[in-house]
Amino acid sequence: MAYQYKLVRHVEFAETDMAGIMHFASFFRFMEAAESGFFRSLGLSIWPGGSQERVGWPRVHADCDFRHPLKFEDVVEVHLLVREKRPKAIAYTFIFRKLSEQPVKEVARGNIVVACVTRDPSSGKMKAVSIPDTIADKIEVAPKELLE
Amino acid sequence: MAYQYKLVRHVEFAETDMAGIMHFASFFRFMEAAESGFFRSLGLSIWPGGSQERVGWPRVHADCDFRHPLKFEDVVEVHLLVREKRPKAIAYTFIFRKLSEQPVKEVARGNIVVACVTRDPSSGKMKAVSIPDTIADKIEVAPKELLE
Amino acid sequence: MAYQYKLVRHVEFAETDMAGIMHFASFFRFMEAAESGFFRSLGLSIWPGGSQERVGWPRVHADCDFRHPLKFEDVVEVHLLVREKRPKAIAYTFIFRKLSEQPVKEVARGNIVVACVTRDPSSGKMKAVSIPDTIADKIEVAPKELLE
Amino acid sequence: MAYQYKLVRHVEFAETDMAGIMHFASFFRFMEAAESGFFRSLGLSIWPGGSQERVGWPRVHADCDFRHPLKFEDVVEVHLLVREKRPKAIAYTFIFRKLSEQPVKEVARGNIVVACVTRDPSSGKMKAVSIPDTIADKIEVAPKELLE
Repeated sequence: MAYQYKLVRHVEFAETDMAGIMHFASFFRFMEAAESGFFRSLGLSIWPGGSQERVGWPRVHADCDFRHPLKFEDVVEVHLLVREKRPKAIAYTFIFRKLSEQPVKEVARGNIVVACVTRDPSSGKMKAVSIPDTIADKIEVAPKELLE
Repeated sequence: MAYQYKLVRHVEFAETDMAGIMHFASFFRFMEAAESGFFRSLGLSIWPGGSQERVGWPRVHADCDFRHPLKFEDVVEVHLLVREKRPKAIAYTFIFRKLSEQPVKEVARGNIVVACVTRDPSSGKMKAVSIPDTIADKIEVAPKELLE
Repeated sequence: MAYQYKLVRHVEFAETDMAGIMHFASFFRFMEAAESGFFRSLGLSIWPGGSQERVGWPRVHADCDFRHPLKFEDVVEVHLLVREKRPKAIAYTFIFRKLSEQPVKEVARGNIVVACVTRDPSSGKMKAVSIPDTIADKIEVAPKELLE
Repeated sequence: MAYQYKLVRHVEFAETDMAGIMHFASFFRFMEAAESGFFRSLGLSIWPGGSQERVGWPRVHADCDFRHPLKFEDVVEVHLLVREKRPKAIAYTFIFRKLSEQPVKEVARGNIVVACVTRDPSSGKMKAVSIPDTIADKIEVAPKELLE
């Protein structure tokens, strides 16, 4: 069982804005990239077509607090932690740390809540379902001290 | 004095993802576009070089709750409302309404908090400053009932 | 029959990069937005699910020459012109003009070639098909002098 | 002296579009990311503030031919090759290969031409300058056979 994943990336030029820093919307893309990596590390995919269980994970909530800017070519660690595992949803926390500067400091912290859904074959609509055991059994909630 | 602004836009193809809906990070770009439009409607610019006051507005917080998806070519209204006016920060709420379907419904709601900053000429660092009167005098908090 | 379309837009903050100008990849997004608008102006959609004909238009080529930069809040006209109408493909030229400065000047010029495809029901693969008459009859090649 | 660089990346969810494939504009972002990596591999930066020489590299041309789609979680190699080294410009070719499928095949090929510029201190405008020797001496044109 796993409760964390670390993605390490450069900030790319296209992710900056004219203020000379990483655009705030890119933080949400980084969070999602970490989530995809977390699922891949478990032999899963966030995309229904990419795993046996055929469930999708639409975002129902996302937030981020920005403390320090990230710049072009900064090396950033996006530390995914499972904050809550509910019957039909998962809440993740993401801690952004700038690795390219000593001492390493937290530059941002965000959260994403995803619902577990399947597409209803008759109506074509998405509906929330219980997280399949084959997925739920691989994911556990992170120790509280990591989330403080 | 103004407390609101409405941006109306199509969802573009590049803003969709493989789930067939607008990618969640694009909601944050739409919020920012509404904020820029709000400032322009007041003869201001969110960019320091674009207005006399030479203050910038880095985001310190952003969040969004996603209720219904938006699809390609949906027409969406992003309704900006000033939720709080603090001495050195403004909090905005953004209500997303899908106009291309009857009845019009709220599909998402988000918030952005921006700090008012100037660049310290000696250190080059950003520091929070009081919102200049010439800006503060043009902005007021929206009536509570609009924010419910 | 139509051979042109004009999209007018502000450059948004998220479309700039740390060089203080619109990121070059955004020019391609603007071109596609103009193409979508062109199709909507004809009662069509570039998305198979959005029109009766159920054909899609994957890009097989895209290019752009950048002459002058665009900045935040610049108002830009993206002038789409149909350069070629082939049996199974359309070639568009896009002329970018900065409207927010006098005299109006061309700042960039690009091209996109799209193939007309349908999804093969058995294999699920895309294959090129002749442009349906209901679409081809609405589109004509622009006069040469507009393309010089 | 170096004439090539290889960037290997996953296709992220945010880079896909509703056609289920990587959006064509993202190919240009990948090319630029490879260019940044190439410069870093030489101890340089494409950003004037990031290297001693203080020159910038605005794009004057970009193009791409798309042969096969890339999908979410595909692993792609972006192979940068120096095609031309002119006094005041560099032309790069980028070959996209999908590594996550056997046999590995070329899925797209693009080009970017960048000009070497400095900011004129008096006017603030960019002007083309000769590539500084400390940069030019590190870069050579790739063997023709790699570019075929």
